[in-house]
Amino acid sequence: MTEQQSGIGKTALQLVLANSHEIKEAEEKVQATSYRYCLGKTGSMELQKVVSAIETAAKRNGLVDDQLYREMHALYHAILEAVQGVTRGQVQLGDVMRTVGLRFSVVRGYPYPNSKEGEWIAVALYGTIGAPIKGLEHETSGLGINHI
Amino acid sequence: MTEQQSGIGKTALQLVLANSHEIKEAEEKVQATSYRYCLGKTGSMELQKVVSAIETAAKRNGLVDDQLYREMHALYHAILEAVQGVTRGQVQLGDVMRTVGLRFSVVRGYPYPNSKEGEWIAVALYGTIGAPIKGLEHETSGLGINHI
Amino acid sequence: MTEQQSGIGKTALQLVLANSHEIKEAEEKVQATSYRYCLGKTGSMELQKVVSAIETAAKRNGLVDDQLYREMHALYHAILEAVQGVTRGQVQLGDVMRTVGLRFSVVRGYPYPNSKEGEWIAVALYGTIGAPIKGLEHETSGLGINHI
Amino acid sequence: MTEQQSGIGKTALQLVLANSHEIKEAEEKVQATSYRYCLGKTGSMELQKVVSAIETAAKRNGLVDDQLYREMHALYHAILEAVQGVTRGQVQLGDVMRTVGLRFSVVRGYPYPNSKEGEWIAVALYGTIGAPIKGLEHETSGLGINHI
Amino acid sequence: MTEQQSGIGKTALQLVLANSHEIKEAEEKVQATSYRYCLGKTGSMELQKVVSAIETAAKRNGLVDDQLYREMHALYHAILEAVQGVTRGQVQLGDVMRTVGLRFSVVRGYPYPNSKEGEWIAVALYGTIGAPIKGLEHETSGLGINHI
Amino acid sequence: MTEQQSGIGKTALQLVLANSHEIKEAEEKVQATSYRYCLGKTGSMELQKVVSAIETAAKRNGLVDDQLYREMHALYHAILEAVQGVTRGQVQLGDVMRTVGLRFSVVRGYPYPNSKEGEWIAVALYGTIGAPIKGLEHETSGLGINHI
Ligand SMILES: [Mg+2]
Ligand SMILES: [Mg+2]
Ligand SMILES: [Mg+2]
Ligand SMILES: [Mg+2]
Ligand SMILES: [Mg+2]
Ligand SMILES: [Mg+2]
Repeated sequence: MTEQQSGIGKTALQLVLANSHEIKEAEEKVQATSYRYCLGKTGSMELQKVVSAIETAAKRNGLVDDQLYREMHALYHAILEAVQGVTRGQVQLGDVMRTVGLRFSVVRGYPYPNSKEGEWIAVALYGTIGAPIKGLEHETSGLGINHI
Repeated sequence: MTEQQSGIGKTALQLVLANSHEIKEAEEKVQATSYRYCLGKTGSMELQKVVSAIETAAKRNGLVDDQLYREMHALYHAILEAVQGVTRGQVQLGDVMRTVGLRFSVVRGYPYPNSKEGEWIAVALYGTIGAPIKGLEHETSGLGINHI
Repeated sequence: MTEQQSGIGKTALQLVLANSHEIKEAEEKVQATSYRYCLGKTGSMELQKVVSAIETAAKRNGLVDDQLYREMHALYHAILEAVQGVTRGQVQLGDVMRTVGLRFSVVRGYPYPNSKEGEWIAVALYGTIGAPIKGLEHETSGLGINHI
Repeated sequence: MTEQQSGIGKTALQLVLANSHEIKEAEEKVQATSYRYCLGKTGSMELQKVVSAIETAAKRNGLVDDQLYREMHALYHAILEAVQGVTRGQVQLGDVMRTVGLRFSVVRGYPYPNSKEGEWIAVALYGTIGAPIKGLEHETSGLGINHI
Repeated sequence: MTEQQSGIGKTALQLVLANSHEIKEAEEKVQATSYRYCLGKTGSMELQKVVSAIETAAKRNGLVDDQLYREMHALYHAILEAVQGVTRGQVQLGDVMRTVGLRFSVVRGYPYPNSKEGEWIAVALYGTIGAPIKGLEHETSGLGINHI
Repeated sequence: MTEQQSGIGKTALQLVLANSHEIKEAEEKVQATSYRYCLGKTGSMELQKVVSAIETAAKRNGLVDDQLYREMHALYHAILEAVQGVTRGQVQLGDVMRTVGLRFSVVRGYPYPNSKEGEWIAVALYGTIGAPIKGLEHETSGLGINHI
């Protein structure tokens, strides 16, 4: 990676880890790079709503072209990989009686010095997972990366 | 969580994400909390070396009592959960022709305001995963959390 | 395998891979063997509908005796194994926001020269998997084999 | 383990394996130990109902304190581990067209001679799994153990 | 199941759960049924040694005919299903730094009143799993069942 | 897909399914398309040898540029997906006492009418899986597809 630019995955993780008072600084840091990104929140017992929320945000913010399956395919697999970090074993939420509250980021750009490596996409997740009862939860995180 | 203290998982992730010039600040931030922690590096095509490196570091730094299975059991499952974020699907490295280079952190403490919730342990991983050829790799991360 | 007869799995795969103008030839080829078979189509975001469609077709076509759990058990595990080829990692469809359109075949017979090896059953799947939006999909396939 | 006391996992398994005429003897055997336990039945095509039935029984019988996430977390992971023995591969029921009828036990206590090892919890499951048609089913079992 | 005969899975589990002073009684109980069985012990960090030990014992005791793939296939999948109860998530031992010490039983016979259901095979496992250090381990169990 | 050209996945599957007397015809059929491909054989109890054999063949035949991680990454994930169809559940061979003998194909090209969808890669596997004893095996197959 170039010296002036963090990895695309680290960038994505730092965006979801930033507290409310750190988020402005974190966003400015990314804006100084060549990466494009979006940020959002999602919470559900239904995994498909989590997948869908991230896909929708990435499309609306122009991070992926929803007319190109190639781009949606890259994003989809990056999301699924990130979700595996969150669910750690069974890619399931409500079916095993648990729910998530997550912040997500999607970052797109050129993470390798060799421009022929082209664009890649990173999806980061951070939040809580636990029983569908307030407080019965612990933190969780995931990172998925794919070429696009 | 108390207002003055980040989650135990976020703390663990920030430690592994810190660059060399950020690490001092990241460590001071943790030292200002009631959490105890250790940091290390490990790289291998053999998953058991990764597990072992984290266990050894946690024992040497007094984060777990290796005479108590209870503590080793809590740590072990936290490690395995973190590894699932890194491997995303198959908890395997060399068997599927890939290798990792990881920074790891182990953080222990009281993450909940209610002291009866007792101590918890977080294991965070961040680094690269890829073919056993320099440069053919992308970033990866994982977080595991358990009561101890 | 005998020289005059392909493997039961290859037979099942060739049936689902045949285009509309090849299907007659493919079926005649199987009819010249001692294998019995059925063919069908199924498409859904619900995995249980896929499982159910194959079970129903196999029962209706007399490939399995639905009064014998032994036979249903053999078929069920063959279906699940074939589905794992289709889903590659998480045996899930709608829960991870994807849908399938599949052709399936079930083939039953004696694939080994030694008649004591008895009957076996093969389930083959071929079609598309992807987002629930026309065109955002790629091909997928699976094969399950069991003794019956 | 002490000589007079079986393992906590064996105890949990023996409770779910006892026939109606053996159950009294099995319960008396546990009552002679320092373990606390509860027993129940659950049957469903929905995995979350199975998880929920065990959690509810454990809470009602005072085996876990539902005001402490620490205890619910220990129980939850023990349940999930037991469920993996029952489902063997995909932690799913109705999604893959199958249903369970299970007896469950939850046992809590000190299984190790060293009292510093503290309390542990075991969840045992035994019953049938199969198609949602009476008789098309075989036995299944699972055991999950965690420190609490 | 007939009234005089327990399920084949329960029979297999009771054999591995019996203590040294109970084993004679447990064996006599099975000998009064039409089931055939064998018992053994295996311990390893290598999963393939566990699989191999059970296969060898079943062959030597005439529970399966090793000249018939059909029988070895039925046994193999029953073993793998039982192992999934033992490993709960990743079918791995040494790769994730853990070892097992197990008792195993293989039981073969007619578990259903309808003789057309034919013979089935059950594999039960019970013992300990944990770090490769004496005492750092907890109990584990698994049950696999297949038609043969 | 264009009318004159089969899907990239079907093409890959037909190449590995062709018998020795059918292979010439199957190859000619692919050569009439715009797809590029290679064919090979691999057999092992070590999964990494299977992965490695396919990667090496794809590199040597110029199907992927081994100086571009982007291409190796696309190929790698396609291989892993194909392997999941072959292993159906645990991505393991020798560790669970089984071996494979496989034919593989790698096909690269433009499978979608819209040229903006760019190139994709398909990996197909077909052969046998079973005990490391001649004859104790059944057929197996897998298909992985990725954008490149
Ligand atoms: Mg990757
Ligand atoms: Mg947890
Ligand atoms: Mg098989
Ligand atoms: Mg454990
Ligand atoms: Mg079964
Ligand atoms: Mg895909």
